[in-house]
Amino acid sequence: MIGVDWGTSSFRAYRLGADGAVLERREAARGILQVEAGRFSDVLRDAAGDWIAAGNRRVLLSGMVGSRQGWVEAPYVPCPAGLAELAAGLASVPFGDAEVLLVPGLSAADPHGVPEVMRGEETQVLGASTQAGLVCLPGSHSKWARVSGGRIEGFTTHLTGETFAALRGHTILGRMMRDGDGSPVAFDRGVVRAGEADGLLHHLFGVRALGLFGRLADANAADYLSGLLIGHEVRSAMPVGAAVHLIGAAALCARYARAIEICGGRASLDEGEAAARGLAAIGEHASWS
Amino acid sequence: MIGVDWGTSSFRAYRLGADGAVLERREAARGILQVEAGRFSDVLRDAAGDWIAAGNRRVLLSGMVGSRQGWVEAPYVPCPAGLAELAAGLASVPFGDAEVLLVPGLSAADPHGVPEVMRGEETQVLGASTQAGLVCLPGSHSKWARVSGGRIEGFTTHLTGETFAALRGHTILGRMMRDGDGSPVAFDRGVVRAGEADGLLHHLFGVRALGLFGRLADANAADYLSGLLIGHEVRSAMPVGAAVHLIGAAALCARYARAIEICGGRASLDEGEAAARGLAAIGEHASWS
Repeated sequence: MIGVDWGTSSFRAYRLGADGAVLERREAARGILQVEAGRFSDVLRDAAGDWIAAGNRRVLLSGMVGSRQGWVEAPYVPCPAGLAELAAGLASVPFGDAEVLLVPGLSAADPHGVPEVMRGEETQVLGASTQAGLVCLPGSHSKWARVSGGRIEGFTTHLTGETFAALRGHTILGRMMRDGDGSPVAFDRGVVRAGEADGLLHHLFGVRALGLFGRLADANAADYLSGLLIGHEVRSAMPVGAAVHLIGAAALCARYARAIEICGGRASLDEGEAAARGLAAIGEHASWS
Repeated sequence: MIGVDWGTSSFRAYRLGADGAVLERREAARGILQVEAGRFSDVLRDAAGDWIAAGNRRVLLSGMVGSRQGWVEAPYVPCPAGLAELAAGLASVPFGDAEVLLVPGLSAADPHGVPEVMRGEETQVLGASTQAGLVCLPGSHSKWARVSGGRIEGFTTHLTGETFAALRGHTILGRMMRDGDGSPVAFDRGVVRAGEADGLLHHLFGVRALGLFGRLADANAADYLSGLLIGHEVRSAMPVGAAVHLIGAAALCARYARAIEICGGRASLDEGEAAARGLAAIGEHASWS
């Protein structure tokens, strides 16, 4: 089987063995924002045509390629959902000499009935090296999933990474920031500050005020802001004392692990390639023709 | 006396009678960001040279004109501070045929020792039509001042307006927004949402998710986001049941008044020109030569 993790800005293809092992992997700068309408099949053929020609005729795609802006829209499956529900919701994609299926996204509702969506992360969560507890995927839109018995019971999203970029790029806070070597101490200060009174919007002004009074160096202000936002996210999303399993890029997961510790939780890092394992597991449950 | 409220983007000059009444007012698009270095005296002379020539030889300036980016820096006076402390901290500005003084800014610390600053708002607060209780000046950097016996005891700042602009202009939330006629219902929904669980960063993603599921119209999304941010600010800054006196632009104060009501407080609107009244009162306490 061929598995593809096809997101907004990235494309990762895996040739998977019968046991789900990754036999070969390829990456391309062909996230869906880099693909012209109608050219998705060309991209897939460019990246994996030789694998298909060699007899790998089952292709499973996950991620934003299944969104309205992608190749074919695969409707959201409601939580709770595990491998069986995702496999039952696969969307079929017309393609010449291979059978191409698309993993659906997941939807949920928070306790107040506000909707939640994910697309791509469900495959990583179900491919994670633990299958119970709280799983966090940090990023522009960080996801916190509650997993039990191999099923995703529900999840919440936090607009943390995108808010950081907007504040850094387009407010007075960014204008005071200078590139630095990275300050773990400033990051920790931000995480601690997030636990204090008067809310995030007040804490944001504090970034400027600390700078004005010489108590936060311009070179450390971005790390402090990062700690502030991640600290607010972790304190909102994580029950005190919880164990959190992290999936994602190493440097970002290290920041989250540190924030989780400071906020009284325990962090573990996912081992291996969660997306590939998740694609293999969903593929096993799929009804291939 | 001549009083000038000279901010980052605005310049308002008042000719004041002996009793502090506004005899004449002038506005110009000459905020400090629109003034070249070394040209502050020219701007003042252009706007009020005829008043000075007619015998008004005392000029009092307040606002960002007293910052490091302004004409002359007037150091911050620490809270608690009233008219006497501000008058004692006035900075002198060299100017030919008139005596020009600058109102200092105020500094404070929040309960955790993080510094706070204001510059210009102190003059408005001390010119407000009430002189006790909680006074809020909404804006890019909203101020909440605690006033007692005509003195500002302390204050907090919230980066609400600037965060709104950054999120609207530079995130996926802004890309879904379309101009609308203004939706008070969407604003109210945002304020209510701010009181629910899981924090602001989670609520921000909800703006997008509600849109995806057709539960928030693109034309109403900006009002919802405005309610969300103002709701978070009010819930953080205002003790439940408090009375809040608002100073500022009418449309923005109306939004805050509505949010304050929804959050269980009582709002009143300032009458008249707080900046002119504050300048007159500080001028009365000043030691003119």
